[in-house]
Amino acid sequence: MSDALPIGATIGILGGGQLGRMLAVAASRLGYKAHIFEPGSDCPAGQVAHAVTTAGYEDLDALAGFAASVDVVTYEFENIPTAALDALEAVRPIHPGRKALATSQDRLVEKGFLSGLGLAVAPFADITGEADLRSAMAEIGPKAILKTRRFGYDGKGQQRLDADSDLSQASAELRGSPAILEGFVAFSHEVSVIAARGLTGEVAAFDPGENLHREGILRTTTVPARLSAAQRTDAVLLASRILTELDYVGVMGVELFVTPQGLVVNEIAPRVHNSGHWTQAGCAVDQFEQHIRAIAGLPLGDGKRHADVVMENLIGDDMDRVPGLLAQPDTALHLYGKAETRAGRKMGHANIIQRR
Amino acid sequence: MSDALPIGATIGILGGGQLGRMLAVAASRLGYKAHIFEPGSDCPAGQVAHAVTTAGYEDLDALAGFAASVDVVTYEFENIPTAALDALEAVRPIHPGRKALATSQDRLVEKGFLSGLGLAVAPFADITGEADLRSAMAEIGPKAILKTRRFGYDGKGQQRLDADSDLSQASAELRGSPAILEGFVAFSHEVSVIAARGLTGEVAAFDPGENLHREGILRTTTVPARLSAAQRTDAVLLASRILTELDYVGVMGVELFVTPQGLVVNEIAPRVHNSGHWTQAGCAVDQFEQHIRAIAGLPLGDGKRHADVVMENLIGDDMDRVPGLLAQPDTALHLYGKAETRAGRKMGHANIIQRR
Repeated sequence: MSDALPIGATIGILGGGQLGRMLAVAASRLGYKAHIFEPGSDCPAGQVAHAVTTAGYEDLDALAGFAASVDVVTYEFENIPTAALDALEAVRPIHPGRKALATSQDRLVEKGFLSGLGLAVAPFADITGEADLRSAMAEIGPKAILKTRRFGYDGKGQQRLDADSDLSQASAELRGSPAILEGFVAFSHEVSVIAARGLTGEVAAFDPGENLHREGILRTTTVPARLSAAQRTDAVLLASRILTELDYVGVMGVELFVTPQGLVVNEIAPRVHNSGHWTQAGCAVDQFEQHIRAIAGLPLGDGKRHADVVMENLIGDDMDRVPGLLAQPDTALHLYGKAETRAGRKMGHANIIQRR
Repeated sequence: MSDALPIGATIGILGGGQLGRMLAVAASRLGYKAHIFEPGSDCPAGQVAHAVTTAGYEDLDALAGFAASVDVVTYEFENIPTAALDALEAVRPIHPGRKALATSQDRLVEKGFLSGLGLAVAPFADITGEADLRSAMAEIGPKAILKTRRFGYDGKGQQRLDADSDLSQASAELRGSPAILEGFVAFSHEVSVIAARGLTGEVAAFDPGENLHREGILRTTTVPARLSAAQRTDAVLLASRILTELDYVGVMGVELFVTPQGLVVNEIAPRVHNSGHWTQAGCAVDQFEQHIRAIAGLPLGDGKRHADVVMENLIGDDMDRVPGLLAQPDTALHLYGKAETRAGRKMGHANIIQRR
C-alpha cells in the first residue's frame, strides 16, 4: 500500500450523473473526498460530492483548476474529448488510462483489439459510405446492425438492418459519421462481467450477471446468471485478459453473448457499469468502491457474492413503481436525484435480494 | 404515502458527524437532498451533503435560514439547546419530536419515564449534593455509577463508585451539575434494539445486536445476539412500547442489559445509533435509510436480516488496522473523513459479513 492514495485525498470524477454519484459516495466510505467536473448544473453527483466544478470540456482553464485540486482523475463515461484528456493528464494521472479510452471510444478499434486478442466477436466491417454498406451487407447480412463508430450508448446511433432495408437511406442517416456494420449473433442470452484491475496488476471479477435489455436499454440484471461452470470461468478469464492487455486500472464492464459456440464479446465499457449495480446488495465491496480502490492503489475486494440479487432499472415512468418498491421486502432502492423524469431516462434502480 | 415528502425535497440534519454523514447518504439514495447544520468547519457530513450551514446553535438567524431552506429537521445527537429547537420548530417540523428529546436529554427524566412504563431499570436516585449521594449509596450501593443528568455520552461525565470511594470528592467533581446515581446491574451481556416508528404509527425493529464496550465506548456489535426467542420478542416489544408512548417518529437505539431476571433498560438514544451500523451490511434498508423513511413519511423497511454481521468500531489508533481490513474478505469499511486521528475518537467502522 506504499503507493496508495492517503486518506483525505481528493478523487476527481469527470461526469456528474448517477455513476459519478455512486462513485462519490464510495470514495467517501474510504475516507476520500470527491470533486465532480460536469457541464450541467445541479447534477446528481454534485448532491453528494465535496466539490463541484460546473464547466464544459472545452474550458481548459476550468480543467486545469480541477486537475490541480484533485489527486487522481477518473470518469463515469468514455466519450471525453481528447483535448480535455490532454489538459488533465498534464497535471494528474487519469485512470483508467488513455489506451482503454481510445479503444472503447471507437467501436471499430474496439472490435479490432478484441479479435486481435483471439476473442470471438460479431462479424464486422468498416463503413465509410453506401458502397461499403452494400458490400458488407452482402457479406455479413442480411440481419445486421449499423452503428456509428463513436458516441453511441443505450442504443443511440444504431440502426437494425435486414434484407428489406433501404441501404441508401440507412447510409444517409449516418450524416457522414464513420460507422461499423455488425453481423447478427444468434445468442441465447447476454451476460456481463464486472472486473477490476489494480495499480499493481491484480485482477478481481464479480460473478457474471445476466442482462435483459428492452429498446436498447438495460432493464434487469440477475445474479447468478445462467452459465455452466466452464462458461463462468471462461467469462472471467477473458475479462481478465482484456484488462491486462490494456494495462487497465479501474473497473470495466464486459458484455458477452452466450451462444452454442461459446462466449462472444459484445462490447467493453471502461468504467463502472449499469449491469454491476447489483453488487451494492450482493457484495461487501461493490463495483463503485472497487473502482475507487483500484485507482487509489488500495487492495481490491475479492468480488465474492453473499446474496443472490435481481437489479431492476427505473426508467422514465418506472418512477411510478417507487411507492410499491418502498413497501416491498428485501428491496434496496437507489434514486439518482434527477429533477425531471423523462422517457428513456435512467432515474434509479432497485436491488432485490433473493431469499435462498 | 399522501403525506410523504416528495422526491427532491431537502432534509435538514443538525450535527455534521459520522451519523449525519451516513444519514445524508441515505437521504440521497431516496432522492432527497441533505442540508447539514454544524458549528465546526469541514465536518464529515458536509463532504457528502448538498448544503452545509456552518454556525453555532446560538445563532438564531442562521437557524432560521437553515430551517427555511429545508422541508423537515432531524438530528444526529440529542444535546441540542432548547432555544435552538424553539427557533427551528417555529419554521419546520422536527422529528423525532420534543417529547423524546426532553426525555432522553436528562437521565433522571428518562429513568422516571421508563420505570413509569413498568419497564425494569437500574435502581436510581436523584443527586443534588453530597448528602443525597451518601444516602443513595447506603440504599443502592456499594457498587454504583454517578452520572451527570445531562450532556453525557461515550462514558463522559460518569464516575464508578464503590465502598471505598471518597464521596465528598465524587460530589465535588460534579461541579454543581445535577446528577443521578445508578445502582449496579448484574448482567451477562448488553444488547440493543434499533427500532423505528413512522409518521402513521407503524413500528419496525431490526434484530437485536450484542454490544461489547471498552472504556465506556462501544467496540463491537454482533448479530445475532445471544438471546432466547422469548428474550428477543421481549426486547422488540418493549422498544416498540417506548416509541409508541413517546409518539416517536424516526429511529431509536434502546440499550438493554440481559439479566437472569429479564431485560433491564440501560438507556435510550433518540437517533440512529452506533450499535445499528451493522444494518448497512445485513439489511436491504439500513438504520440510516430507515430513519429518513420514517421522518419523510415513507413506508418503513421491515428490518429483516439477510446476513449475520460483526461490526467493529475503529477508534483512535485502530486506524492502523485499515490496511488489514481492506485486504480482509467479506469486510465493508466505512471511514468518516475526519482529518485528525485522536485517542478515543470514532474514526470509522467495519462490517464483517459472517459466512453461514
